[in-house]
Parts: sequence; C-alpha cells; structure tokens
Amino acid sequence: MRHHDLVVIGTGSGNMIIDERFDGLDVAVVEQTAFGGTCLNVGCIPTKMLAYAAEVAHTVRQASDYGVDAHVDKVRWPDIRDRVFSRLDPISADGRKGREESDNVTVYLGHAEFSGPRALTVTGDAGTQEFTADRIVIAAGGRPMVPPPVEKSGVHYETSDSIMRIDEIPGRLAIIGGGYIAAEFAHVFGGLGAEVTIIDVADSLLSALDETVSERFTEIARDRFDVRVGRSAEKVESAGDGVRLTLDDGSTVEADRLLVAAGRVPNGDRLNLGAAGIDTHDDGRIAVDPYLRTSVDGVFALGDVSSPVQLKHSANHEATVVQYNLLNPDAMREVDLNLVPAAVFASPQIGMIGRTEQQCCDEGLDYRTVVQPYSDVAYGWALEDRTGFCKLIADPSTGQLLGAHVLGPQAPTMVQQLVQAMALQVPVKRLAEVQYWIHPGLTEVLENALRGLDLD
Amino acid sequence: MRHHDLVVIGTGSGNMIIDERFDGLDVAVVEQTAFGGTCLNVGCIPTKMLAYAAEVAHTVRQASDYGVDAHVDKVRWPDIRDRVFSRLDPISADGRKGREESDNVTVYLGHAEFSGPRALTVTGDAGTQEFTADRIVIAAGGRPMVPPPVEKSGVHYETSDSIMRIDEIPGRLAIIGGGYIAAEFAHVFGGLGAEVTIIDVADSLLSALDETVSERFTEIARDRFDVRVGRSAEKVESAGDGVRLTLDDGSTVEADRLLVAAGRVPNGDRLNLGAAGIDTHDDGRIAVDPYLRTSVDGVFALGDVSSPVQLKHSANHEATVVQYNLLNPDAMREVDLNLVPAAVFASPQIGMIGRTEQQCCDEGLDYRTVVQPYSDVAYGWALEDRTGFCKLIADPSTGQLLGAHVLGPQAPTMVQQLVQAMALQVPVKRLAEVQYWIHPGLTEVLENALRGLDLD
Repeated sequence: MRHHDLVVIGTGSGNMIIDERFDGLDVAVVEQTAFGGTCLNVGCIPTKMLAYAAEVAHTVRQASDYGVDAHVDKVRWPDIRDRVFSRLDPISADGRKGREESDNVTVYLGHAEFSGPRALTVTGDAGTQEFTADRIVIAAGGRPMVPPPVEKSGVHYETSDSIMRIDEIPGRLAIIGGGYIAAEFAHVFGGLGAEVTIIDVADSLLSALDETVSERFTEIARDRFDVRVGRSAEKVESAGDGVRLTLDDGSTVEADRLLVAAGRVPNGDRLNLGAAGIDTHDDGRIAVDPYLRTSVDGVFALGDVSSPVQLKHSANHEATVVQYNLLNPDAMREVDLNLVPAAVFASPQIGMIGRTEQQCCDEGLDYRTVVQPYSDVAYGWALEDRTGFCKLIADPSTGQLLGAHVLGPQAPTMVQQLVQAMALQVPVKRLAEVQYWIHPGLTEVLENALRGLDLD
Repeated sequence: MRHHDLVVIGTGSGNMIIDERFDGLDVAVVEQTAFGGTCLNVGCIPTKMLAYAAEVAHTVRQASDYGVDAHVDKVRWPDIRDRVFSRLDPISADGRKGREESDNVTVYLGHAEFSGPRALTVTGDAGTQEFTADRIVIAAGGRPMVPPPVEKSGVHYETSDSIMRIDEIPGRLAIIGGGYIAAEFAHVFGGLGAEVTIIDVADSLLSALDETVSERFTEIARDRFDVRVGRSAEKVESAGDGVRLTLDDGSTVEADRLLVAAGRVPNGDRLNLGAAGIDTHDDGRIAVDPYLRTSVDGVFALGDVSSPVQLKHSANHEATVVQYNLLNPDAMREVDLNLVPAAVFASPQIGMIGRTEQQCCDEGLDYRTVVQPYSDVAYGWALEDRTGFCKLIADPSTGQLLGAHVLGPQAPTMVQQLVQAMALQVPVKRLAEVQYWIHPGLTEVLENALRGLDLD
C-alpha cells in the first residue's frame, strides 16, 4: 500500500498549505470535484461577481431617482454566467494542473473515506485507491443542507452548487431559506429579472444577524420580493415545468425554479470518520483543539468541515495555522477566531464585526448603542439613501467597541475600518478624534456614529 | 458706533464656532452671500451630489460590460439640479434664520472690510454699517481664480460658483484647469452628456497628486474627454452663442460653455487687511500662528482665507481650535494639520493621505513603494476593474506608512482606513496581520498592498 508523508483532503483552503517548504515530503491531495473548493467554484467569488452584475441592473432601474431616465434593454444571462466562469474555471484547472505536474505531489481524484486512523480509500474514475500517511489534513468543506420535504419530494431543485450555472434566468424563483446565501441569490436573480419569493422559518431574514440589521433588511426585501417569513414549506410538488410549494399556513407558492439555501452541513459524515476514531461535535463538525488537531494523532482539520466559523477568511487563517503546526510540530500556534468579520453582498450590502446586541443581552453585558443613518451625512444625500445605517455597540467600562453593524452601500468596505479598530483595541472616543474624516465621504457615517456613542 | 464682544466674518466653518457657550456674549456674524459657505452652497456637498448622479448615468452606459444592455433615455438636468439645491438651499436659509432669531447674535449681510485693527465696515443692501469688536474671527474663505486671458476677454464664463445652477447641460463644455475641481466637473457634465475638453497648463491632470495617480487618471480621462495637457489658452473669444479658445500651440477649442476651474485664491485681498495691520503670506493667505491668531491682537483666522490646506474637514478642525482658544484664552490649543486626507469624487474616485512619492524624493527620504491593482482581487473581478490601484509608500526604518493613494471605486472610503492607521502609527506589518480582511471584500486591495510592501 502506498504511503505518503502528508495527505490533504480537499483543495479549497487546505490546498494553500502545500508550498515549497513541503518540497522534501511525499505529499498527496484528494479532490472530489473541482480544485479550489467552495469559495472559488460555487461560493464567495462567483456569487460576488454575479451580485455586482445584479447591482448594475438594479442601478439602471433606480436611475430615475437621480434624474437619469434609463432602462434595461436586455439581461444577457449566458454572457454574465460565462464571464464569471470563464475567469474562474481556468483558475481551478490551473490549480489542478499545478499539483499534477508537481514532482512531490500525488493527486487523487475522487471521494475519500477513512479506513483506519491514518489510512484512506479514494473512490473515483480511476477506481479505488488505498494509501496511508504520517499526517493527514481534513479540509473537506461542507455542502448545502436540503430539508426533508424537498429531498423526499423528488422535485428538481437547485442549490448554490448548481444555480449559478443554469441556462436562463427563471421567470419565478422560489428560495427556501433566509440566511446570507438566500439573500445574495435573491439579489442576484431578482436584480437580473426574476420574480423572487423567499420562504424562511425564522421571523425575519438574516435572523442570525443583529436584530436591527435583520429587521431593516427584511423591510427592504419586502419592497423587492415576496417575503414569507415565519413559514415553512410542508409540501413540495411538481407543477408543469416548475414547482408548487404548500406552506404551513396553507398558502402556496408557484415557481419555475426552486433554490434550496437553507444552511450548510459539514462533510465529515461522508468521510467514514468512525474508522479513524475521529471525534465530531453534535452538529457534525470534526472536533479540533486550539492547534486544529483532531482526536487522532497526526490528523488535523480546518475550514467548514470543523470550524465554528464558516467563512473563507477564517478558513484561510486556519490553513496558515495548520501549515505552521505541520512545519513546527514542537512549537505549535493556536487558532484565533476572535473578531472574524462577515459581509453580505446583497442589496443592501451588510458588514459586521463582533457581537450583536442580542449577544450582549444574552451575556448580560453593560453596553451602549447608537444607530447612525446614512441619510444624516452629505454623501448619504448624494446616494439618496434612506435605509442605510451604522449601528455600534460599545462597553462603557472600557470605552471600546463590542460590535459594529453596517447596512447600506459599501458596507463591507466601511466595516473593515472598524475591524481594524477593534483588533487594535482603540477606544471609541480616540477613534473618533485621532483622525481627520474625509468630507464629504461616506465614512462620515462612521465618524458620526462614533461621536454619537454616549459612554459616560 | 456699535461694539460687539465677538465678530465672525463668514458663515462657513466660522459659523460653527458660535454655540451656547457664547450665549453670554454680544456676537455678530457677517455674510456676503449665502449662509453655510463654499462647502454647502458651491462646493463639496452639491458637487458630490451631482457627481453621484453622473456616476449613475455612467454606470448605465457601461452596463453592457457586465452583460446588462441598458441605455439612458433622458438626463433630466433641471430635476438633478433642483434635487440638490432644494435640499441645500433650505439648510442655508435655516442657518441664516437661526442666527437672525438668536437673542445674542447680530447678522450683518454684506461685504466686510477692516477700517481699523478691530473695526469693520459692512456694505450691503442695508447700506453701510460700522462697528468694532473685542475679538474678530476671519473665516471669509476663497474664490475661484480667473486667469487674465479669460478675465480680459469679456466672454461669459462659469466658475464653480455658478455652473451647478445653469439651466441645461451644454453640448460642449470647455474646462480651463486640471485640478480636482476641474476633474469633478468633467465627470459631472461629461457623465450627464456634455462633450468635455479639458485644457491644463500642467503635463498631466491632478498634477499635485502622486505621480502614479496623476498619470493613471490622465490616461483614463483621455478615454472620456478631449484632454489638452501642457497647454494654455492664449486667446479667448466669443463664437456664436459659445466660446472659442486658441491654445499656445495654435490649436483651437470651441465650446458652448466655458468653465474656469484653475485654482482658488483666498479672499483676504478684499478685506482691506492693511487698515487693520493684518499680515499676509505672499500667496495672499492671512498669516496665523499655531493658535490661529493673526498678527493683530484679538483677531483670528481660519479656513481657506488663511490655511495651507483648503479642505472642509481641515477648516472644521481649525474652527474647533479657534472656538477652544476663544473660550480658553489662557490655555490655547495648537492647530494640527498633519495627516489631512483628501479625496476626488471624479471617475475614477481618488483618496489620499500623507506624502506623495515626489515629496518623499524631494525630502530625500528612504522609502519603499508598492502598487496593488484592484484587478488582482476577487472583488476587482466583480467590478471588472482594470485601472484601480492602491499605492503605498512606507519608511523601512519605522515600518510605517508615509503615504497612501487609492484610485478606483470606493477610494475615499478605502483610504480612510489608512488615515486611521497612520494617525495611530501602526506599522505596516502589524496592520496587515492584526485583522481579518473580509473575503472577498474590496479591502483585500489594501491587505495585498500592505502584505506586498517589502520593508526588510
């Protein structure tokens, strides 16, 4: 049986680990689908590219608000889709080629399962291949969760894995789910012309976010989409070429396409972890210690398969930690998942860092908040923005931010400055006063929010 | 003769000084035109509002690049103009009303001139009024500079004071000048449909900015406008309802409107400063000490009439310094004009802080630079941006930034984070590593620039 020094399962963030410092080792990588993982192929990057095209179409439709009468003549969806994937697919292919041409890296294409603590079986087009390794990194990611009523129905449905490559914009799109993936695809396909219905069991969209953000986002979504919150799809059936959903209140939704965006599950359940003795959490994530070691000696895990944070920038950080710990087994580093920001590239955009107000409440913290509208600053007037805001939450005892939540144009860019501030532990008052704020820049929203926090 | 405790000449930033802490004093304000000063009435705010409308029109015209075929049906210029000024004019009117209704503030409408060290004459519709004061704040701003060939020609021309209120978008607009005001109006009127010709004596547009920015901006402008750099208008004459310019190379420019945007001059020359004995610099600015005191006891100056930095956010800071020093004459504060950022809201946008590379050269500094294109990060792919970049300049001995220059979408928002970093004196390496950078946010341009600086 072939034996490797190091095997990495998954070529998303895990693939970053193998650089020239591993040239002296016999390394293998295992990939079941496309090289590059979720982010490159079916996640962050293509969705953001599509989201911007939808933003352009949305801007055209809103242009008359600014005195510019304009209209969309045609949305060339195949061109939009092909622009995205003609850029991304070659990156994936080049990634595979680079590994395949590498002197010290073996590529296994197929589905990996453990057959022992550090023994794997890969099943793919090349048949079944078995091998062992001194060390293994599990970076096998996650996949869309499909609710039982949909799965059992046998109707055709899309997930984030498939919907970005469909052939035409559906006339009517039903989305099950109300989290960030649902929100982004509602923006993408709604912006490009579909009539969108969103069905979510929670009482508001983006219900895991700060409640002020979630409520405002839901209000705005109601203007563009048919929003059915607090509802679940009880019955799912085919109707002509499309689908009919019957919700728990007896109401129905008919659509030409169904998108399931109801959350993601880690892929550990497909790896036969029991054969290796690798422990998992109740939610299916592989259990790791602060050095990202699993319960089995020599086996590490990172990213969506194990992390409490399912984001690319945290997975990248985890990959650098695993890389360091593989190279420095006697002086390992701990992972740091404090202050991981997140963003939603829907319309409006959202950026967030730190705690929500609900979390501060639940933790019994003493805190102060401020909600600063975009519409109070000059650049907000330029944007004619009536819904955007920056909400800050701060601790009066330390004078520092506990959380920051921005909803509106440029929100992911705006919040990054507050990520920096929190990471540097700069008190709110100093943050407001230490710098000149460009007038009339959009960042005056941040300035006014900081100045508006009463921490005395 | 009437005597006041305090007189403020100009109601731009100067008007911010008078708050409830001055309720016990007999205060006067003098205003020659509209309350609110340049920024509110003829400067930052209306230009940014118009710039965004132009950006919307520009986005419509570029939409097909993103697979969205669209076109502009009509630009409703009177609606655009009226949307801006129906918001701003009432703010100006309310500002005047608030002062006129105040118990302790006298409003003089007209042109102020000194008749002695702390004695003024105001000439306006109410005739000539004379008064003296214990203390005077000169915050009289600046005005567009008009080159002699234009002034002498007698042809009709616009400046930033007048062009935003014209009745229709000119078919052809000639702009004399190549600084930020010229750049912003070229974007505004070009974006809204005018054919724009820019004539500037410098060899590139925005020639005072970092040379990489200036060169790139000029290249991009050549795609949209007829750019005549390194040229001056020697002869200016009427031609039909428009104007004909003959340049120093013998070439001509014909246009329906002429905009002069060739710089600004401080208004001190119109205040009869000699009668007060107030010293000025050679360039006409009133000379002030670090406490913003002029050469005459009890007379302060701030903003465009005296400052080396002609920006609203620095004028506001100067107003807070003068306010503090009026309230605390025995413990005055110094002005701080270090690290004043600036932005240009043209297309593309620009944000900048600190030194340009030329300044580093001229000062003989040891420095390193990096130029990070937008097109190397995922959100740049979404934007299909091919011209944007972040240029950083850093000092290898301290590890800190000397300057940062961003050109591209969201540049003024992007650079504010680096303003914060420089104000907090955070070394480049720490800045890159201390925070999670949202993926795939536009701020990855900043992350990659910071990581790309080789300071070893």
